[in-house]
Amino acid sequence: MSAEQAAALIDPGANVGMSGFTGAGYPKAIPAALAQRISAEHAAGNPFRISIWTGASTAPELDGALAQVDGIEMRLPFQSDPVCRAKINSGAMHFADMHLSHVAQHAWFGFLGKLSVAVIEVTAINADGTLVPTMAVGNNKTWLDLADKVILEVNYRLPMAVDGMHDIYYGTALPPHRKPIMLSAPNDRIGETTLRCDPDKVIAIVETDSPDRNTTFAAPDAVSARIAEHIIDFLGHEVRKGRLPNDLLPLQSGVGNVANAVLAGLQQSPFENLTGYTEVLQDGMLDLLRSGKMRSASASAISLSSSALADFLDNIDFYRDRIVLRPQEISNHPEVVRRLGVVAMNSMIEADIYGNINSTHVMGSSMMNGIGGSGDFARNGFLSFFVTPSVAKGGGISCIVPMCSHVDHTEHDTQVIVTEQGLADLRGLSPRQRAQIVIDQCAHPDFRPMLQDYFDRAQQSGGQHTPHILSEALSWHDRCLKTGTMKV
Amino acid sequence: MSAEQAAALIDPGANVGMSGFTGAGYPKAIPAALAQRISAEHAAGNPFRISIWTGASTAPELDGALAQVDGIEMRLPFQSDPVCRAKINSGAMHFADMHLSHVAQHAWFGFLGKLSVAVIEVTAINADGTLVPTMAVGNNKTWLDLADKVILEVNYRLPMAVDGMHDIYYGTALPPHRKPIMLSAPNDRIGETTLRCDPDKVIAIVETDSPDRNTTFAAPDAVSARIAEHIIDFLGHEVRKGRLPNDLLPLQSGVGNVANAVLAGLQQSPFENLTGYTEVLQDGMLDLLRSGKMRSASASAISLSSSALADFLDNIDFYRDRIVLRPQEISNHPEVVRRLGVVAMNSMIEADIYGNINSTHVMGSSMMNGIGGSGDFARNGFLSFFVTPSVAKGGGISCIVPMCSHVDHTEHDTQVIVTEQGLADLRGLSPRQRAQIVIDQCAHPDFRPMLQDYFDRAQQSGGQHTPHILSEALSWHDRCLKTGTMKV
Repeated sequence: MSAEQAAALIDPGANVGMSGFTGAGYPKAIPAALAQRISAEHAAGNPFRISIWTGASTAPELDGALAQVDGIEMRLPFQSDPVCRAKINSGAMHFADMHLSHVAQHAWFGFLGKLSVAVIEVTAINADGTLVPTMAVGNNKTWLDLADKVILEVNYRLPMAVDGMHDIYYGTALPPHRKPIMLSAPNDRIGETTLRCDPDKVIAIVETDSPDRNTTFAAPDAVSARIAEHIIDFLGHEVRKGRLPNDLLPLQSGVGNVANAVLAGLQQSPFENLTGYTEVLQDGMLDLLRSGKMRSASASAISLSSSALADFLDNIDFYRDRIVLRPQEISNHPEVVRRLGVVAMNSMIEADIYGNINSTHVMGSSMMNGIGGSGDFARNGFLSFFVTPSVAKGGGISCIVPMCSHVDHTEHDTQVIVTEQGLADLRGLSPRQRAQIVIDQCAHPDFRPMLQDYFDRAQQSGGQHTPHILSEALSWHDRCLKTGTMKV
Repeated sequence: MSAEQAAALIDPGANVGMSGFTGAGYPKAIPAALAQRISAEHAAGNPFRISIWTGASTAPELDGALAQVDGIEMRLPFQSDPVCRAKINSGAMHFADMHLSHVAQHAWFGFLGKLSVAVIEVTAINADGTLVPTMAVGNNKTWLDLADKVILEVNYRLPMAVDGMHDIYYGTALPPHRKPIMLSAPNDRIGETTLRCDPDKVIAIVETDSPDRNTTFAAPDAVSARIAEHIIDFLGHEVRKGRLPNDLLPLQSGVGNVANAVLAGLQQSPFENLTGYTEVLQDGMLDLLRSGKMRSASASAISLSSSALADFLDNIDFYRDRIVLRPQEISNHPEVVRRLGVVAMNSMIEADIYGNINSTHVMGSSMMNGIGGSGDFARNGFLSFFVTPSVAKGGGISCIVPMCSHVDHTEHDTQVIVTEQGLADLRGLSPRQRAQIVIDQCAHPDFRPMLQDYFDRAQQSGGQHTPHILSEALSWHDRCLKTGTMKV
């Protein structure tokens, strides 16, 4: 049927589980049709909002379109759309920012309420009713299993040759019936290549022919390249000390230009035979696979620039042998991440001198995108890096601050902080020891004396485990809100 | 040999791995002898400090004695001794506050430096060189394996009948060689009953005859009893909604009087056939086992009041069939905690209106005890409760604040906050939704209007995902530091 007809099957107030993970695999037509319907209902004075659960971020056609018409009551677990973000930060919609590994199980536990309908993009519907997944698995298995009704978008733009690339694990269960997840290497396969779907639940099928969101990457700039250099030097140091094998351990890399720069740096590094165990596979990791530096990679989604996508499609048989796409409850599972010993590299908004990390909030109140999988990987990984340029907004904002304005990763979960200025290895240190290293190694020279002054004065009075001057701890952020800069 | 002779074998600057977990199983004689030696060296003008790694907290004879003489350079991963705490907070010693599940693996990874010597209390040394563990396993397996030299304290006070109660898992490995931990029920056994020890590493054996630290519990007061009531009501509600089985799921309970009150409350509850999967087994859980309400419990240590200990010793065959003591890397392992679906109940110092939790720091700077295992259980459990009386210090301090002065558990990890005032179920909510519920349900009436006023004004300007007034967010703590109360 048409997208409009399918959209008419979604009720106001429904919890809707949609496909989509980091700009890949989201439904292309129904959200826009639904946004039109919502807009018309609003014009007629009828309230109409739905709650949307996905894998992770989607695209303007989904989050943007539905947020624009004030059609979203609650959004979870992650978003990165400018319109959606603005609506969250104006208070026009609710957002529950969750660990990506928690989403499927919390839905199964019944903690998020009833899932009315799943809207899932697929590559194909097989004759036996199973579904060939797209470039993103996300929470699709869970939405298909839990929802009362299912709406499918079959996207003819997707290559049938992705069939076989996926590993959909059907061994999950509710406690107390859970068993070990028997996955001991990044490319192990423990599931099925297709998604199961009860045909009796399918109330609509819509055909589309549209590309995924185009992810653009800048070539690594000087700052990103310096950060990458520090990380690669450090990994080499760890190998020489015998703390990492020569082929390292499975790499996880967050989204964005810094992450891409690190992967680009690894291309030039002496390390061979690498593996990846990450949530989203982007250009940098595809390059490592193409060159043979990386032998296999596991992810929940593939999100590429248009040139990388062309290479992927041209060489899909090559990549299908080397890439496994999994549900995000497995790609991000603490059990698996800890067992494999993942080396986690994630970007952040700011770190404080004691090693607490803010990944989500600008100036303590405004949501950027969400925590995503960074907590799953940072807490459970073998090594955890958090990276950021040392300053933002043309140098007026220090990304190293006296106290984070919001904490997503605590001092207990942070091991290495990296900026273009340098790298702070915080393993086994007390808060005071960490502070001096973070100031010396990571802070921008414009802010280093201010941070040292704060730390020195904090050590003059009060509790000395984590010295703070509470009346000043957040004053840098407050000043920035009032004057546009953290500088005095 | 004598404790003094053994203490003479520990070098200045050494990293020393000692046994001990929550007041049980710590060496009784050598730390005091070492403290005397350190004191004498200091009097002679010679520097002498060591770093001490344990399972968790110990007792005055260990942490107290060595901190008193300024003999500790770095302490990890947990402590609860008044003298030790005072030295940490005066800046006289360093403390690395770690997730209890991280300690063994970080030591194995080489992240904490070289372990020179292990000082381990045991119940007995078997003819084949294996060791019968005490009332606490903690990190003993790891210290025995990693240390260059081993010193044993054989404590004749411990009953030989504990033999067989332990399950020491030797299947751990370094990544990339790790395999699934095949433990699917709290009382599964996957290891050996004794500790392995290379006899060539044993440089001293010291005999003692001393009890563990005596843990005293107050009978539940009205506040603790109310908190317990709220939790038990909620668990009943979850069972009725079909979100929990009738026999619940394995219970984890933090240390202290509130935790004990919850367990005492369960004694009177309709729930039967309970299980425990926790880090320290205290009086309340022993009572549940004794009454038959609980069928089995797993922990890393047993820490009892003197009357409970007498019961335990009198009925040790009964308890040995129902209790499994494990290394803390298994009792607290994210893989196992998540698989079993543990119901985690942990106390806290304060919560903020948005659901962030401070478990460790008084007024942002002074260490109380440490995070312990609360993060292992809260992040990975099926359900996570954080509990506290709504006020402290005679009512001058609100335990619900606008912003936590330190964050140990983020908004992403908190599900249910409980005070004697009531219970806030935060599952699936946005920060603004959480704030209103926390204020309404959990805040003390003396502070509720102040919190509502803060939240109302924070919603007048700035980012509305997590509304804050940064210049006021920590002003309650700052006022308390200056005036002794958070009240205006």
